[in-house]
Amino acid sequence: MSTEVVSDTPASRLTKAVPAHPLAPLSETELTSAAAIIKASWPAHTDLHFKVVTLQEPPKAEVVPYLEAEHNGTQLPSVSRRAFINYYIRNTNKFHEAIVDLQSGRVLHNVLLGPFVHANGDGEEIVRIEKIALEDAGVKDAIAKLELPEGTVVISDPWIYGSDGVNDEDRLYQCFLYMRDPLNSSEADSNHYALPLPISPVITTETMKVIRIDTLPTGPDNTIKPLGKWPIFPANEYIPEHQTLRTDLKPLNVVQPEGASFSVSQEGTSNVLQWQKWKFRVGFNQREGMVLYDVRYDNRSLFYRLSLSDMNIPYADPRHPFHKKSAFDLGDAGAGIMANNLKLGCDCLGSIYYLDAVLSDDKGGVVPMENCVCIHEQDAGIGWKHTNYRTGRAAVARSRELVLQSIITVSNYEYILAFIFNQAGEVDYEIRATGILSTQPIDEGVEVPFGTVVHPGVLAVHHQHIFSLRVDPFLEGQNNRLVYDEAFAMPRSDFNPHGTGYYVKETVVEQSGGYDIDYDNNRTFKIQNVNKRNPVNGKPVAYKIQAPPFQKILSDKDSFNYKRAEFSDHNIYVVKYRDDELYAGGKYTNQSRGGTGVRAWADRKENVKDDDFVLYIQAGINHVPRIEDFPVMPCEILKIHMKPVNFFDKAKSGTGRTTE
Amino acid sequence: MSTEVVSDTPASRLTKAVPAHPLAPLSETELTSAAAIIKASWPAHTDLHFKVVTLQEPPKAEVVPYLEAEHNGTQLPSVSRRAFINYYIRNTNKFHEAIVDLQSGRVLHNVLLGPFVHANGDGEEIVRIEKIALEDAGVKDAIAKLELPEGTVVISDPWIYGSDGVNDEDRLYQCFLYMRDPLNSSEADSNHYALPLPISPVITTETMKVIRIDTLPTGPDNTIKPLGKWPIFPANEYIPEHQTLRTDLKPLNVVQPEGASFSVSQEGTSNVLQWQKWKFRVGFNQREGMVLYDVRYDNRSLFYRLSLSDMNIPYADPRHPFHKKSAFDLGDAGAGIMANNLKLGCDCLGSIYYLDAVLSDDKGGVVPMENCVCIHEQDAGIGWKHTNYRTGRAAVARSRELVLQSIITVSNYEYILAFIFNQAGEVDYEIRATGILSTQPIDEGVEVPFGTVVHPGVLAVHHQHIFSLRVDPFLEGQNNRLVYDEAFAMPRSDFNPHGTGYYVKETVVEQSGGYDIDYDNNRTFKIQNVNKRNPVNGKPVAYKIQAPPFQKILSDKDSFNYKRAEFSDHNIYVVKYRDDELYAGGKYTNQSRGGTGVRAWADRKENVKDDDFVLYIQAGINHVPRIEDFPVMPCEILKIHMKPVNFFDKAKSGTGRTTE
Repeated sequence: MSTEVVSDTPASRLTKAVPAHPLAPLSETELTSAAAIIKASWPAHTDLHFKVVTLQEPPKAEVVPYLEAEHNGTQLPSVSRRAFINYYIRNTNKFHEAIVDLQSGRVLHNVLLGPFVHANGDGEEIVRIEKIALEDAGVKDAIAKLELPEGTVVISDPWIYGSDGVNDEDRLYQCFLYMRDPLNSSEADSNHYALPLPISPVITTETMKVIRIDTLPTGPDNTIKPLGKWPIFPANEYIPEHQTLRTDLKPLNVVQPEGASFSVSQEGTSNVLQWQKWKFRVGFNQREGMVLYDVRYDNRSLFYRLSLSDMNIPYADPRHPFHKKSAFDLGDAGAGIMANNLKLGCDCLGSIYYLDAVLSDDKGGVVPMENCVCIHEQDAGIGWKHTNYRTGRAAVARSRELVLQSIITVSNYEYILAFIFNQAGEVDYEIRATGILSTQPIDEGVEVPFGTVVHPGVLAVHHQHIFSLRVDPFLEGQNNRLVYDEAFAMPRSDFNPHGTGYYVKETVVEQSGGYDIDYDNNRTFKIQNVNKRNPVNGKPVAYKIQAPPFQKILSDKDSFNYKRAEFSDHNIYVVKYRDDELYAGGKYTNQSRGGTGVRAWADRKENVKDDDFVLYIQAGINHVPRIEDFPVMPCEILKIHMKPVNFFDKAKSGTGRTTE
Repeated sequence: MSTEVVSDTPASRLTKAVPAHPLAPLSETELTSAAAIIKASWPAHTDLHFKVVTLQEPPKAEVVPYLEAEHNGTQLPSVSRRAFINYYIRNTNKFHEAIVDLQSGRVLHNVLLGPFVHANGDGEEIVRIEKIALEDAGVKDAIAKLELPEGTVVISDPWIYGSDGVNDEDRLYQCFLYMRDPLNSSEADSNHYALPLPISPVITTETMKVIRIDTLPTGPDNTIKPLGKWPIFPANEYIPEHQTLRTDLKPLNVVQPEGASFSVSQEGTSNVLQWQKWKFRVGFNQREGMVLYDVRYDNRSLFYRLSLSDMNIPYADPRHPFHKKSAFDLGDAGAGIMANNLKLGCDCLGSIYYLDAVLSDDKGGVVPMENCVCIHEQDAGIGWKHTNYRTGRAAVARSRELVLQSIITVSNYEYILAFIFNQAGEVDYEIRATGILSTQPIDEGVEVPFGTVVHPGVLAVHHQHIFSLRVDPFLEGQNNRLVYDEAFAMPRSDFNPHGTGYYVKETVVEQSGGYDIDYDNNRTFKIQNVNKRNPVNGKPVAYKIQAPPFQKILSDKDSFNYKRAEFSDHNIYVVKYRDDELYAGGKYTNQSRGGTGVRAWADRKENVKDDDFVLYIQAGINHVPRIEDFPVMPCEILKIHMKPVNFFDKAKSGTGRTTE
């Protein structure tokens, strides 16, 4: 499947000694050096199309002693800095994966991938694809048949092609066409999703040419009607100058006169964040965006690594070509590279601190990512309260939270992604889904059971959003256990004569696999360390996981959708830790075929009891669109909670009381 | 079962013409008049123990025309003001229910209830019970056997007795005894729940005497050990002077320089609240606390009435007397009368408006309830966002919420209860559970599967909290439908050749009954009005219900716990509307036996399709205590959401955009 083409060219002139933390993202110098090392491994003038240049995280076996030394203040071991690189020979389908050592400049690994292994899209490419679709003579002819009003501006939205096993060996883009409001064609921020057109060109990335022009079904079935004069419906804009804005909302300001309570220490490209008793290191990469490392509370380790691993958004319309709409927004695009500059849109209140990052571009250069993570505190209402009714004395503490937020725009849609820490030792991962529905044309008067008409002529198809949060625990040690508690009624007996008793039973998960939360039994998964006991009650220290219910993937088990979205069928996957296994849908999701992600890893059926394991925790929405979701949907909010269970004792004041 | 003792004494001297709104809570004058009318119906010097004097809400058939006239500005019909009264002949078990007409002074209904029908506890009574328990000679003898340190202060927590069918015909209190920290006995706010004692006196309310002293099991089984020298464990205080307070949290202030964006019009005891396009009337009563009436958005009616109906908290320990711990905090005590004065404890930020109320006392007088509801706005993060990646322009709106909050203290425990309205037409009911666990003694070294040792010698038993939100919809009309949507995979076919399609199917609920949310099918209940159609897509206007999963009651179906907690076994109950049916656990929950609440009403199997129905929406927690929950637990938060579905269209700007 792959051919080793490792180069031995030392390329030492490009190498610098980099005293970075082993988990620090690659610096600008490292990024360009890494690309240059790969360029140097090819004949001069070979045009490489870089897809990703990013930190190759060192093996955990090297990092853990480093972190221990760091926290103990002892001599730091040396850990190599390495870069992971994906690239094409430009305008070919020759897709490569490489690892270079940044100190020595040596190429440690450099393989041609494939067949059926394809890279993510990138910004440059997407913009080129948009243009190619619109400049193609065949597409122009098709558009002409619609007899659109004079001056109409047509917009092309390139989509990752998806997989159905039918002629999808090449890396393709399927473009969906829309138009701006013809009465306002010069408005670049016109909501074209309100005016979808029935033409869909397909472009191959090998030649960057249109290879097919699909006509979309617009009726209740899969009949394709010949193109003809296209009905023009009214626009539906979201930009404020097209709204009657509310005037009755008075300002609400969050003021922090003494500034924020957290501190950020910048160590090169790495940021160490401290807030209350929390401390962790923040990274940022092209694919996952924010990554948190070495998360500690009161210097007790909790997590080795936390990140969003991937998400999958399969659509309900089974008709060609819509059946291929099944996006992996991290694997196919990248939560890092799609991150918003958060200063361009008043996204937060209070004292905000922004983090910058630097990512790679398609030519071996860098893309500065300014303000791609914001950090702020927020008040979360009452944290705890008790009133002694005998004395009338109330003791109450508000809950302060620390938020690390990143917002990604993936074409039409937005995800607001946040890690939230509080004073009770809890970590939440919050997802807010907003943005614009991906729309398609529908004939007037037609209703379909797989979508909602959200505007005249506009169908918003039902779709699932399935997110996978990767949790690499380190609960006071590398070897932990996954267990679950369940509550059951006691049978009647002399001990339970009135049928009121119930008990909680703990079960240990022995083997890697996919597991489900059973809400009917209050099944609650916990990460435990049986070698660390609570001094009060002797129970193993633990963190429990509270994840909201979601409908598992609806695509059938033989479908490519199901095979590819390897995390989509269970609330929780647990796998034995292996270096380089980070992405629940597999390393290469674009037009993937399954078998390279978390389901495959779980199928190794390895021991995970008192071992080093990784959890993938899923959350999701089955989004059945409403009129109220268009043109921009109000946030739908999901939260995964991780909470201490017998981890703290009163002496350590873990519940974080700030009191009156 | 009941004897009519209606009096015809007009008692007109006590009556005043009250031009109150039909849904306004009783005024001070009305409360005292109502009690006086009842007193006058009895021979002079009869000592009545009033349990409740409250508004007898008029029949909906009278209120609806009134509300229509009110909103249309036409002549208001006359609606009688009536009071509902529960009382005992003091120091007897003669429990009465009465209705009086406040205009005429006539007693319309006055019946002796029972047997097996008992009143709620009240504050005066609870304080008396506390004392009686501690002053009883037998209890003193029992305490003496514990050989507690000199000067120890013992505290008595009276508990509603519960039902098990064993000698519980009389209305009883079961007291649980605790001690203050013996090293700090003068501290009235010492957390006595950290020092539970094994003695539990039982008191009958008929004679107000101790009738039995139970010794509590403290081992792993139901063995009762003779009382002897009691081990003294360390204290565990929650008051701030006993904590090392955090010093590293900087102030975060919410400032509303122009004040709040809502307005409150006080109409006697009734308050009309307007915020953005929302408008509703706020009531407050002894049992439910906050009640919202006639909830409208942009003058389109949504709900006739919203309130918390009841809650049930059954405990897992099956051993006598703990098996009877199954509280109904509304029916047994009252969310209104237990409400905190919210100015005594800095509970909110920003511009706060407080509502007062007046409730009845046990002697026919009144209890002023100052600041029992607070109203404020809060920022809820980003409401929606979209960035046009082609132009880089971001449009973003924050989400502003309006919160009506009430906090109740039920002995050891607190509930923070809030209705939350937002700009997207959504209504949330939020419950925050906090306060102190109800504890009991446990021997050192013992572990039990039905509770957690949270402190040396202290067992916090697992328990369920099951809340029932009563929703009386009026979705643009009195006759609505309850339907549910479910998403199913499409079978493979020519239409769905790749197995990716799915569809949503709507099912109409025809008959009253208990229904469950099936998260695996994304089953989503909606309130619909099929006579009002969305102008864009022709779908019936609707509001959907999103309720979190919870484990249904664990007590077995033959248990009194199950029979009494009539709402505890389904996510949703739907019943045909009947006047006076308000309380999901029945009107009289104290030592109740079931058959008088929502399960019984549902069993009438009445039509609810396109009819006037009421929903009871359940949410809950199976609280398996952690060390981190003691001495005061960090809030556990539950939310029930109600969201518009095809109720608004773009023209009405229902999604509430405030934009950049």
